[in-house]
Amino acid sequence: MITLASDFGSPYPAAMKGVLLRRTDARLVDVAHDFPRQDVRAGAFWCRETLPYFPPAVHLVVVDPGVGTDRDAIVVRAGEHALVGPDNGVLLPAARRIAAESGTGARIECFSYAYDDPDSSTFHGRDVFAPAAAAVHEAGVDALESVDSLSPVESFAVDGAPDAVVGCRFPDAEVSADEARGEVLVVDDFGNVITNVPGSYLDGREGETVAVNGESAAVARAFAAVDEGARLVTVGSHGYVECDVNRGRGDESFGLAPGDDVVVSVSSARNAADRT
Amino acid sequence: MITLASDFGSPYPAAMKGVLLRRTDARLVDVAHDFPRQDVRAGAFWCRETLPYFPPAVHLVVVDPGVGTDRDAIVVRAGEHALVGPDNGVLLPAARRIAAESGTGARIECFSYAYDDPDSSTFHGRDVFAPAAAAVHEAGVDALESVDSLSPVESFAVDGAPDAVVGCRFPDAEVSADEARGEVLVVDDFGNVITNVPGSYLDGREGETVAVNGESAAVARAFAAVDEGARLVTVGSHGYVECDVNRGRGDESFGLAPGDDVVVSVSSARNAADRT
Amino acid sequence: MITLASDFGSPYPAAMKGVLLRRTDARLVDVAHDFPRQDVRAGAFWCRETLPYFPPAVHLVVVDPGVGTDRDAIVVRAGEHALVGPDNGVLLPAARRIAAESGTGARIECFSYAYDDPDSSTFHGRDVFAPAAAAVHEAGVDALESVDSLSPVESFAVDGAPDAVVGCRFPDAEVSADEARGEVLVVDDFGNVITNVPGSYLDGREGETVAVNGESAAVARAFAAVDEGARLVTVGSHGYVECDVNRGRGDESFGLAPGDDVVVSVSSARNAADRT
Repeated sequence: MITLASDFGSPYPAAMKGVLLRRTDARLVDVAHDFPRQDVRAGAFWCRETLPYFPPAVHLVVVDPGVGTDRDAIVVRAGEHALVGPDNGVLLPAARRIAAESGTGARIECFSYAYDDPDSSTFHGRDVFAPAAAAVHEAGVDALESVDSLSPVESFAVDGAPDAVVGCRFPDAEVSADEARGEVLVVDDFGNVITNVPGSYLDGREGETVAVNGESAAVARAFAAVDEGARLVTVGSHGYVECDVNRGRGDESFGLAPGDDVVVSVSSARNAADRT
Repeated sequence: MITLASDFGSPYPAAMKGVLLRRTDARLVDVAHDFPRQDVRAGAFWCRETLPYFPPAVHLVVVDPGVGTDRDAIVVRAGEHALVGPDNGVLLPAARRIAAESGTGARIECFSYAYDDPDSSTFHGRDVFAPAAAAVHEAGVDALESVDSLSPVESFAVDGAPDAVVGCRFPDAEVSADEARGEVLVVDDFGNVITNVPGSYLDGREGETVAVNGESAAVARAFAAVDEGARLVTVGSHGYVECDVNRGRGDESFGLAPGDDVVVSVSSARNAADRT
Repeated sequence: MITLASDFGSPYPAAMKGVLLRRTDARLVDVAHDFPRQDVRAGAFWCRETLPYFPPAVHLVVVDPGVGTDRDAIVVRAGEHALVGPDNGVLLPAARRIAAESGTGARIECFSYAYDDPDSSTFHGRDVFAPAAAAVHEAGVDALESVDSLSPVESFAVDGAPDAVVGCRFPDAEVSADEARGEVLVVDDFGNVITNVPGSYLDGREGETVAVNGESAAVARAFAAVDEGARLVTVGSHGYVECDVNRGRGDESFGLAPGDDVVVSVSSARNAADRT
């Protein structure tokens, strides 16, 4: 099985599929091709939230603002999965989570992929990464050492950091009793604002009101628990605190965009409520 | 075969696919993931217009504004198909049509799906419905009674109505010799305005002019039968009267949106034409 | 294998998939369903840039502004591939390229597909072309002569032109030492402006500045070679000169849309640079 994820929009992914299908009979599964354009961190986030749900597979991931430069093409092995893409960090959060879920002592192993001068300097998804993913699939994830075009670069523990390949880590929020200080990681298609504040911060607070950057919102488990058009703060499916609107867009209501600072506060909300 | 339909946009459906593929080797076919958000009636409409074309399959449908509340998860068997989704009516029009086409005496059989507390309260597509669809597929549509997590709730005839599960019916238009009074069911991606007026209302009127809410338009079989940018009223592929514009958007030209009342009138168009 | 390409948006392609899967077990691969609406030339361009990458397959292509009129449904055989769609030229550029790549002496063979009055006059993708594609797939591309509903119409050489079916050729640019005069063929999802000026016009000019309709831009191999928001002129993955912006939209920056005239000029850019 080969999954495909990119920021290519349409119809470029079809050329990648053609290239793959000339080289393999693998099942192809589209993850998404509308990742935010050239946004490595967003791509890394969405890969981490989707790829670990798959059974062992080869994951072709192309979010590649450095296409045509001398950035490397790499293959990352994590558990029984392999991830194929540019060496810019986009593969690592998913690999780390897959490895962590694959058992104790798991390591993340990185290989460099050697390729001839490709047909294009702007579409390595078609000309470099799709052939690489097909080669990895045909060899088998446990036999990457036997693939001529692959060279081991380094391996590191799940809780370690890479030296040779480009890393990618999402920032941690600072959580105290009164408030959690974090940032917006991504905004999804619904306009839901996904922060890096751990969902556990809301434990036992269902039905309470909190403040997000000073604006109050109810803590709720379900969108339908608040009125249509009303704000809610909830724990999203990825385990983080989300700022949402029932049948509306949280990003617009809260005025938040990726990278923005977020302070979720219990006490100030109570104060704000007291003043009301 | 498992088909997938939702209002999830991207990339959430990928997590559902991963969950499915960990549990089944079934062929997965995307129906659409851009159904109008949290619009049960629109989702029900589009499911009815697409799912009956498939061979026997399990259809996973998630348009679920009540996610995280105590609404049930259900499985509906119709002919050799099974539909899996929330108990809010979204499955029923498709089930009714599939059952009707499967032969005389067909019934629609509803099962309740029991599930443990899911990982998330906002993404039951991944945590509840995908596992349910995989379980249904692996058991086989004719063996739902043997699935531990399924309990029969009720069955009803194709022309009957449910008592226990939530129903969903599209309104009927009132058709007389002079006019048809109905409403807009949905607007498609092209901007075509799909009403509930039966296409037979236009029988024998090709080339005539009718009035839609007082504004005249030609009755035509083909978009290309009218000038670019001109309005037409035609019978759409679902058998209803559509209000369209050749190479334009009918919704903008006619000023119509889902739920709006529509009066398609023969006589007033003639009068309007007489006055011109 | 059957690939699907259309301008249908969503969810209409799902009905086509259902119709196909009732008739064949073939692997289905989506190429794209968001081709520019009713734009035969753009559809033809994107098919030519994607379909030839596939292994031998049946390609179902529906961009069909003449749906419901008396335009024919055709099947075009090129090498080991067959293309199925309306007789409006949309299939021919892809067929020509596939045939050219399949070896010397290859010809393009056109068949007419006879069909009964379809269920709808507006959705021949579902009612005419999907059944045709399934029939072609089941018969086999090398046995089209044995399909009752197909009649040979004509065949022509790769460098020839059709008489009976509708042709489609992209215009050639006029290239001289000082300038290349062409036009915009399409604009992609990224806003990249794809012209018909052959990429070879930029050979040896990397790092130079050229003028596009009088506005200067750097010639670069990679987006990342210019600053964020800066213009570049590059050779796209299809071999043509593209006018792009790094992390921005070339169409907006250059003020160009499909069909616009484009003059790429070396000398005037030098002059412009001299004057600066």
